[in-house]
Amino acid sequence: MEIIEKANAEALKRLLGGDPVLVDVRPAHEVMPDLGERQILHAGPPIEWSRMCGPMRGAVAGIMVFEGWASDLADAESQVDSITLRPNHDFDAVGPMTGMTTMSQPVMIVENRAFGNRAYCTINEGLGKVMRFGGNDAEVLSRLAWLRDEFGPLLGAALRRTGGIELKPLVGRGLTMGDEMHQRNVACSSLLVRQLGPALVEAAAELNLDNAVLSRALAFAGGNDQFFLNIAMAMGKAIMDPVRGIEGSSVVTAMSRNGTDFAIRVSGTGDRWFTAPVEMPQGLYFPGYDESHANPDMGDSTIVETVGLGGFAMAAAPAVAGFVGAGRASEAANFTRSMREITLSENPEWTIPSLDYAGVPTAIDVRLVVESGIAPTINTGIAHREPGIGQVGAGVVKAPMDCFTQALEVLAAELGIS
Amino acid sequence: MEIIEKANAEALKRLLGGDPVLVDVRPAHEVMPDLGERQILHAGPPIEWSRMCGPMRGAVAGIMVFEGWASDLADAESQVDSITLRPNHDFDAVGPMTGMTTMSQPVMIVENRAFGNRAYCTINEGLGKVMRFGGNDAEVLSRLAWLRDEFGPLLGAALRRTGGIELKPLVGRGLTMGDEMHQRNVACSSLLVRQLGPALVEAAAELNLDNAVLSRALAFAGGNDQFFLNIAMAMGKAIMDPVRGIEGSSVVTAMSRNGTDFAIRVSGTGDRWFTAPVEMPQGLYFPGYDESHANPDMGDSTIVETVGLGGFAMAAAPAVAGFVGAGRASEAANFTRSMREITLSENPEWTIPSLDYAGVPTAIDVRLVVESGIAPTINTGIAHREPGIGQVGAGVVKAPMDCFTQALEVLAAELGIS
Repeated sequence: MEIIEKANAEALKRLLGGDPVLVDVRPAHEVMPDLGERQILHAGPPIEWSRMCGPMRGAVAGIMVFEGWASDLADAESQVDSITLRPNHDFDAVGPMTGMTTMSQPVMIVENRAFGNRAYCTINEGLGKVMRFGGNDAEVLSRLAWLRDEFGPLLGAALRRTGGIELKPLVGRGLTMGDEMHQRNVACSSLLVRQLGPALVEAAAELNLDNAVLSRALAFAGGNDQFFLNIAMAMGKAIMDPVRGIEGSSVVTAMSRNGTDFAIRVSGTGDRWFTAPVEMPQGLYFPGYDESHANPDMGDSTIVETVGLGGFAMAAAPAVAGFVGAGRASEAANFTRSMREITLSENPEWTIPSLDYAGVPTAIDVRLVVESGIAPTINTGIAHREPGIGQVGAGVVKAPMDCFTQALEVLAAELGIS
Repeated sequence: MEIIEKANAEALKRLLGGDPVLVDVRPAHEVMPDLGERQILHAGPPIEWSRMCGPMRGAVAGIMVFEGWASDLADAESQVDSITLRPNHDFDAVGPMTGMTTMSQPVMIVENRAFGNRAYCTINEGLGKVMRFGGNDAEVLSRLAWLRDEFGPLLGAALRRTGGIELKPLVGRGLTMGDEMHQRNVACSSLLVRQLGPALVEAAAELNLDNAVLSRALAFAGGNDQFFLNIAMAMGKAIMDPVRGIEGSSVVTAMSRNGTDFAIRVSGTGDRWFTAPVEMPQGLYFPGYDESHANPDMGDSTIVETVGLGGFAMAAAPAVAGFVGAGRASEAANFTRSMREITLSENPEWTIPSLDYAGVPTAIDVRLVVESGIAPTINTGIAHREPGIGQVGAGVVKAPMDCFTQALEVLAAELGIS
């Protein structure tokens, strides 16, 4: 179909033409004026409380306490009907795992300078017991308060001093250093913290912060190998948003999951979500845990696969392939080769040394997914299915084929070719 | 020969059993009490001024001005007879390229905690016009003064606060992130600066330094992708020194070059250097330069190949293989596979993902070099042949076979098997 080819060429041009820059950190309510009291943004497509999985319920209750809308977790659950629950994607935002975004949290801002749009994501909390995996106790809330009151403002001031960190070359370098930007962000996290060091020092002076604050900030950012994940996610959202709404385009513009449903958006069908029950990840569990403890797949982080990273860039990160196999370089390469079957192109700016500098597979085409029967591979963390516990493992999951079949049917109907 | 096998088993045990830790930075004269006025340590085996190459002469003259032993470069050359020139290796030290080490320069200290010995190396000056490549003007000397007066003391204080940075796991991680620790140190440099951040902040407070000093320090260390090279070199020296002097061992304990001669030491023949004329590197040149400008191979940095890194770990760093080819992963792997032919073992703690986690080839055996006719591959920077100019390229060079032939003859004679 010529209209689809043309539309997809435009989609690919916009996708590859994105110029994402990490520019600032601001309280969410400043950059999302519509995000107010008793509103909670969550990962994935829309979902009501009654259908939410355990960790997302735990996170909702926890963030209500954090925002002062409830006195404790039990009080929060009793008041949950007074809360408006909305997807992050409705607010130009993304969030990992449970993906809680509320008005007072600081959000990192990635601007796509080629198109002028901005995307937002909260700051990565680190590993262990954290809200994105459903953690909600005092330790979790106190870390969120520190991010809001101390770390976020400092990081924002530092970023403003730099004039912005160009993300495309940073990610390109990370891919040559073993990162795939979903389960592994060691290189980009290190390169970014190293690059931000001088600006953090100068920003601390500007804000009259003492050296203890600066040291804590460097220890936190420098001690978290996944620090870059949330930046990669905001980058993915900033790159993909201008690709939305191209009539006739069969390119996937978002993949996301809320722990209950998996959903995708396709350029030619606008902001409609095509949903299907989410699947269980396969992977490695922390000591003491197994599949019986695992929650199904969750989070907006699949936006990184949508731009060709994560499972699509597995060849760059054999260590991640080790979650589901021996981690041999050949296994890792097979994941990436397989994703090339369902994408329109490769990204010449994001290349993988072990594939002799082939670009990452980019622009998922729902037609190719349905025709080939190959579902997108997603690298993911695994949350405990109960609220309040946290991460229990990491692994790989497949996007449910039914989302793509539905999307293709609707697209075809709209084009009068069903 | 059973005596050789037994000796080599002991050599390998010591080599793999090393536990190098970066512990401090101190002025050279504090840790090398025998290094005094008008003494200059240089890279490679012993060499007199009359046989020194251009960039090393330039560096000698420059460091004389830096130390206040001459008023300018011409004055320095006129007084050169009053200077004692000694190899770094005689002082438990190593230096990159020209390898100038003098009393007032700060040296980084790597302690091999398994054996108690220490090794030293100056701080990497960054890229561009620098003394290690023969640069000697005011800009070069002023940077050395800043390293001595400001950066070195701060880095030392920070390292003392950390209790030491374990280098074996850091290098292990770097190998999974595209570093081979000779021409490419991006990952280890970034990981180290990130790890040191909080201690640098605390050390600056301890020393009552203002934020401008701290910011400069983070900008310098964070802006130099080769910052880790000199640490890797001191690490190599600290690991290899306990392997020296094992009767009957045919393991190479040092490879080094002064821009005129290439030399090796072998465990069973003690501290004797076996020398041969040094070769020209093959590689890529900066714009405006070509082979006609290049100085032959130079520096103590080949100590990293001696421990299985650099050219031996090329498979970890296809970007470096690109200096002499297309940089294809398969080409890079071939370098490492070839070095496995001349080594006793692989290092199980330093593995390469693209070789399905095979360890780096470790413990060069002069017998295997001579029998196979395969010379060690060395990754190297290329200096301009004239003094005062600096780096003009980077590439790969072969160790001259004659060093190994000589060493094997002497070893055999000592064992009565010639």
